[in-house]
Amino acid sequence: MRVIGIDPGLTRTGYAVVERAGGRLQAIDYGVVRTAAHAEAGSRLMELRGAMADVLARHGPEEAAVERLFFNNNARTAMSVGQAAGVVLLAAAEAGVAVETYTPTEVKQSVAGHGAATKAQVQNMVTRHLELGAPPRPADAADACALAICHLHRSGLRGAIRRALV
Amino acid sequence: MRVIGIDPGLTRTGYAVVERAGGRLQAIDYGVVRTAAHAEAGSRLMELRGAMADVLARHGPEEAAVERLFFNNNARTAMSVGQAAGVVLLAAAEAGVAVETYTPTEVKQSVAGHGAATKAQVQNMVTRHLELGAPPRPADAADACALAICHLHRSGLRGAIRRALV
Repeated sequence: MRVIGIDPGLTRTGYAVVERAGGRLQAIDYGVVRTAAHAEAGSRLMELRGAMADVLARHGPEEAAVERLFFNNNARTAMSVGQAAGVVLLAAAEAGVAVETYTPTEVKQSVAGHGAATKAQVQNMVTRHLELGAPPRPADAADACALAICHLHRSGLRGAIRRALV
Repeated sequence: MRVIGIDPGLTRTGYAVVERAGGRLQAIDYGVVRTAAHAEAGSRLMELRGAMADVLARHGPEEAAVERLFFNNNARTAMSVGQAAGVVLLAAAEAGVAVETYTPTEVKQSVAGHGAATKAQVQNMVTRHLELGAPPRPADAADACALAICHLHRSGLRGAIRRALV
């Protein structure tokens, strides 16, 4: 199964395509979509949509895991993150990719074993899960890897439960 | 000048196309785009994008006035409003329509004369500005009318200032 993890943001959207084959996880591609900070929100959202459509078309993931947002922090950032998330969900739907959303706590729990794991602990576990030589860079790409791993863990678990119940 | 006012939301997005000609304002069209409450966010955002692209193509507004969002209230609503706003800004950019955003206070100030005007006062003034027999319905369409009127007032003022300075 091939999954894309996406951590949306207007300035930087991290993405990571991860495949599970024979119990091993492999990072197919990861990176960050950046948009021009001086541009209008609308044209930045167009850039983001185009770049996400390209990544989805290039790698053909079966499912997507997107960070579920909470608006407890900065209202200005929250607004632009929400807008970026809308365009990411749109791009996934247009590509026919089913989306699951996860909170940061769920991701940490799944990847590092406890919901209060530090960023460094999560990055360390991402590196080990994907058998990489060093943590993915930049940090938004590592977060996207963690989302994809979380989704693969959870969907593997759901599959095992279904099989056990048959 | 022809302006579209847009009040974004995932469940209901109000829009209103208003034209100023010879000092009078005329409502060309107004209404609400609704998306299926039971559907996934991604497919609802696709519906919204398609409907907004249709309205923009049909009426060819020169500029758009979109409500500027604040996230002080319900976090769940805020998330979906932010996502809808992202798709609205995207649709406007794709149609080549320049966007200005206004806070609810700015709209009330411009349409009803003071920033603490009630909804009924704003609707009453919208009805008078557009020379309608009754307030536009539903309420989201009336809010969109108020956004368009606010933008026309302000751009008229900006034009007058520019002319006075030449």
